[in-house]
Amino acid sequence: MPVRPPVLDPPFRIVRASHIELGVRDLARSRAFYVDCLGLLATNETADALYLRGVEERNHHSIVLRKARGPAATALGFKLASEDDLDRAAAWFGARNLPVSFPEVPYQGRTLRTADALGMPLELYFKMDQAPSMLQRYAAHQGARIQRIDHLNCFTPDVQASYDFYADLGFRLTEYTETEDTPAKLWAVWMHRKGNVHDLAFTNGLGPRLHHFGVWTAGALDILHICDVMATSGWLANMERGPGRHGISNAFFLYVRDPDGHRIELFTSDYLTVDPDLEPIRWTLRDPQRQTLWGHPAPKSWFDEGTEFAGVPLREPALAAQPIVAR
Amino acid sequence: MPVRPPVLDPPFRIVRASHIELGVRDLARSRAFYVDCLGLLATNETADALYLRGVEERNHHSIVLRKARGPAATALGFKLASEDDLDRAAAWFGARNLPVSFPEVPYQGRTLRTADALGMPLELYFKMDQAPSMLQRYAAHQGARIQRIDHLNCFTPDVQASYDFYADLGFRLTEYTETEDTPAKLWAVWMHRKGNVHDLAFTNGLGPRLHHFGVWTAGALDILHICDVMATSGWLANMERGPGRHGISNAFFLYVRDPDGHRIELFTSDYLTVDPDLEPIRWTLRDPQRQTLWGHPAPKSWFDEGTEFAGVPLREPALAAQPIVAR
Amino acid sequence: MPVRPPVLDPPFRIVRASHIELGVRDLARSRAFYVDCLGLLATNETADALYLRGVEERNHHSIVLRKARGPAATALGFKLASEDDLDRAAAWFGARNLPVSFPEVPYQGRTLRTADALGMPLELYFKMDQAPSMLQRYAAHQGARIQRIDHLNCFTPDVQASYDFYADLGFRLTEYTETEDTPAKLWAVWMHRKGNVHDLAFTNGLGPRLHHFGVWTAGALDILHICDVMATSGWLANMERGPGRHGISNAFFLYVRDPDGHRIELFTSDYLTVDPDLEPIRWTLRDPQRQTLWGHPAPKSWFDEGTEFAGVPLREPALAAQPIVAR
Amino acid sequence: MPVRPPVLDPPFRIVRASHIELGVRDLARSRAFYVDCLGLLATNETADALYLRGVEERNHHSIVLRKARGPAATALGFKLASEDDLDRAAAWFGARNLPVSFPEVPYQGRTLRTADALGMPLELYFKMDQAPSMLQRYAAHQGARIQRIDHLNCFTPDVQASYDFYADLGFRLTEYTETEDTPAKLWAVWMHRKGNVHDLAFTNGLGPRLHHFGVWTAGALDILHICDVMATSGWLANMERGPGRHGISNAFFLYVRDPDGHRIELFTSDYLTVDPDLEPIRWTLRDPQRQTLWGHPAPKSWFDEGTEFAGVPLREPALAAQPIVAR
Repeated sequence: MPVRPPVLDPPFRIVRASHIELGVRDLARSRAFYVDCLGLLATNETADALYLRGVEERNHHSIVLRKARGPAATALGFKLASEDDLDRAAAWFGARNLPVSFPEVPYQGRTLRTADALGMPLELYFKMDQAPSMLQRYAAHQGARIQRIDHLNCFTPDVQASYDFYADLGFRLTEYTETEDTPAKLWAVWMHRKGNVHDLAFTNGLGPRLHHFGVWTAGALDILHICDVMATSGWLANMERGPGRHGISNAFFLYVRDPDGHRIELFTSDYLTVDPDLEPIRWTLRDPQRQTLWGHPAPKSWFDEGTEFAGVPLREPALAAQPIVAR
Repeated sequence: MPVRPPVLDPPFRIVRASHIELGVRDLARSRAFYVDCLGLLATNETADALYLRGVEERNHHSIVLRKARGPAATALGFKLASEDDLDRAAAWFGARNLPVSFPEVPYQGRTLRTADALGMPLELYFKMDQAPSMLQRYAAHQGARIQRIDHLNCFTPDVQASYDFYADLGFRLTEYTETEDTPAKLWAVWMHRKGNVHDLAFTNGLGPRLHHFGVWTAGALDILHICDVMATSGWLANMERGPGRHGISNAFFLYVRDPDGHRIELFTSDYLTVDPDLEPIRWTLRDPQRQTLWGHPAPKSWFDEGTEFAGVPLREPALAAQPIVAR
Repeated sequence: MPVRPPVLDPPFRIVRASHIELGVRDLARSRAFYVDCLGLLATNETADALYLRGVEERNHHSIVLRKARGPAATALGFKLASEDDLDRAAAWFGARNLPVSFPEVPYQGRTLRTADALGMPLELYFKMDQAPSMLQRYAAHQGARIQRIDHLNCFTPDVQASYDFYADLGFRLTEYTETEDTPAKLWAVWMHRKGNVHDLAFTNGLGPRLHHFGVWTAGALDILHICDVMATSGWLANMERGPGRHGISNAFFLYVRDPDGHRIELFTSDYLTVDPDLEPIRWTLRDPQRQTLWGHPAPKSWFDEGTEFAGVPLREPALAAQPIVAR
Repeated sequence: MPVRPPVLDPPFRIVRASHIELGVRDLARSRAFYVDCLGLLATNETADALYLRGVEERNHHSIVLRKARGPAATALGFKLASEDDLDRAAAWFGARNLPVSFPEVPYQGRTLRTADALGMPLELYFKMDQAPSMLQRYAAHQGARIQRIDHLNCFTPDVQASYDFYADLGFRLTEYTETEDTPAKLWAVWMHRKGNVHDLAFTNGLGPRLHHFGVWTAGALDILHICDVMATSGWLANMERGPGRHGISNAFFLYVRDPDGHRIELFTSDYLTVDPDLEPIRWTLRDPQRQTLWGHPAPKSWFDEGTEFAGVPLREPALAAQPIVAR
């Protein structure tokens, strides 16, 4: 039985997935995509970085784009519940011989840099500089009117190992996919801390790699509108999958690729998951409505392509099982 | 019986209400309202005029704002079906001793200036300069994403006379309000040429005056969004009534006032009326769902205030009956 | 130059596409689809027919499903402007040696049965029994909340011939697709009478056959909802294409198949076309955004399959040119 | 300074507001309102009770309507994180001389009945019978397509005391209203456990009384639709306030009254509040956009009327300050 009961008292308290840092080759081109097209707000811009947030976010940034020689993911950011939790986290990672350092990170308070058991780079902190909420500055809502970051989704070579690691840290399973093997094996998991379907998800694949990060919009019409905008303003080729409705999570979604190929999901309409006794929903790999309730299979690129974590070696996936792919 | 069968072969063919010309005191302030806030497109701007259109309109303008010493409505514009219709219109108005002239009008072809029997200034034409449709330039859709002009709505001192005048010209009645008198009297009429609820409407009141012009949006969420935008960007006091659902026309609506007090209705979700045998819908003046299906009465200003037509004397209304007014 | 100016004074006046009659094998199964799933209203049911309408329609029916041994389309219905137009229509078709008869048709007044030059069966009438509008009986709006029939779309073996036939009858071209031949040839046309993008469309193909009929909803969310409903209530396999945005017409669409394979388009958000000088929009066959603004190609079935007209022989299409088809 | 930092380690862990129990006089009439009109799902019905839930809820009930001689609120239900928390809760309330009992409650596991310091009846539990989620049974989504219970809102005679009581239990403040006194006094508070604006809110007034309970819909169009449904199916008089946008919480709302006068808020579009360092938003009582961003004042009934808790004596409010009321 690969699925476990939730850990209600974890060694330290993660509040939610809070930000991501990506390497990009051309900041001006990234700005055209993220700000001018998608409508994210630029909290700050420097010669080598662009700090973005959604309209309801008071944290200084939820997306950091940093000039780099090539595309890479450099940090998955999680907010902790307090400064104490930060110290407990450092102790916990140290005790497991995982890297522990406290570099200076602009606009953030004390920040722990570490990595999970599979090598994914993590950034844990409690305090970040605050910016004014723009939720009620409606004239500033542009493009997809993105409200906030929602989740991080990664390829892992070992879903069971990634699941176990984060389950220990109090991430709770909401939905999962199993293979048809006997016994069944975990092929994908959706896990949360903040009370909706996920803060963090893992899919079997060459990894660890970032599959995508998700941003939340208030409704499906915001997502249809950004389809129309992208399709008619030079970003048609950056639309990868959707719009559609996921069977898993019930989300209405659109997957787009930024100018460096980083994948972003526009995401809305999942459900509340705060109840500790919420029964995780099980899907089988060959259920055609798992991917898309309306039956559309995902394109091959969606299963194959992802963003590597800077300096983290890749491993072949543990499972050979294959999902349904569009021809 | 004040209501008549439709005239299918009118003396000349009006296609639709096509534009309005208004006097405004401060073009920069008007631009801030119509373009920056409501999101209308500026086709052209001169020292003394601003030419606006909605995103699907290929006509050069549907709203002309002209610098003036005070607020006024200077023309109600209607498009005819052909140049021949223009000549037949001139003959028809001339035969009734109504004014007939063909002034030069920028961006329009041959244009007949005339007036109806109650003095309302009319501008009839067939050809106008064309601008590229922006319907599939979605990145240019801003504010309320207004698609086109929909209708003109006026106070008249004599609803029956205004109704008879335009019924003769082939305007068809779709909905109307009667008093509870015996016999009942026409208190308001909604008449169309283009196939939805109205191109032109009249309400009993001190007149002739422009009550408002209506612009069409694709859905109710566009109207809710402009409420949010206006309420949080300095235009709160310009929101006069709504949002709500009219009983009459079934429209989802919002009434706003421009910086000169001209009233604009944002309007969507009425119905198709092209069938010549469509039975007009009758409402009584005291039906509380006539104004607003959800029961909210209109404010007093909505019944009292309007834009005078430049140089056209006002007359007291024929009927003393009063609608339901919010305290 | 295959495209012609509009005929403003046609030999008789067609108002709009008004209804369709289809043969179906199992009325109970059809009722489950059209009424219980899509939410159309059943005005009447007999042992061998089901009469349906949308929520704003006061005509007794816009869809007639008649029990038959196999799927077939038996009539394309058009409303005329008056009884006089009906007589003029009979004379016009008779003078061209096209069939003319006046059978009794339930719930309709005098009805002319005829056929166009390519053999498509037509039903022209002026008066139909009326039913109460359900537009403001919102509790009765179910499923896709379909408001009305919008258009009829057919395969024709000779697009130019079909275009010419209906252009003579006053149908106006709004959009069209040409081949890349020199000279270019008409591959598809969209033509209207009622003032939006189309009442009638033709595409090159084995024909004449009905490709689909379109029904209109007030917004895209009604279409997303019916996707969710169909996908989770046993009708997943009946979803053929979409949802998506057409380049042509700008419509937001979904194509579904009824239990007999008849295709229905759920359709919204096109634009007003009443101006007689509206310039038709030209598309080329290989433009990938012609079919779907967002780039999704249509499936092969969408190009190949259609409903035959009962007793009407099929002809191979005149043009061999091929659109972009999903692999 | 009446506002305090959040308590991250409360004496026992409340997960969220989970249900409400109300006395109603006529279950059939209540069923017509809650099920047939609003579209809530009836999990179970007995001779003297109706158990309701929203489409995403797997808990057996979030609204319990129990036959009674007169309207009353009999329990505010909160879910705890574990059975241990239930024991800790019983000890905590007992130590404060507040009532403690464990009655049998149908469909719920062990349930603690108690009351807060001002006398409001509370029902705390961990386990409830589960029902299948209907979130992806879209054909069952009717009326307002309500997804879940969101919050409980009460009048209290002493906002500061109520705030202090629940702040001790780990409820975190998100927004609040102060009087213009020096020093300012708390006039209303919005507090949460589950991560959005509130699970529980208090307003100064004759109390304790239930002001309303809130249910969550996925979008504003669901709320506009229920306005249309109520207004045209015999429930017009039950629409009390809105639709509109609250300044506080940013919610799009509608307030309706059930057949017994119990008030329900249809609520959507607030924001994520899980960050422990989220700064509460302060409003002043005289800010006209506090109540409604668009400027509409609430009616007098909205400030005066509420549901009494069965057997709980009322006290006059501590503050005399008055909000803006519609004339």
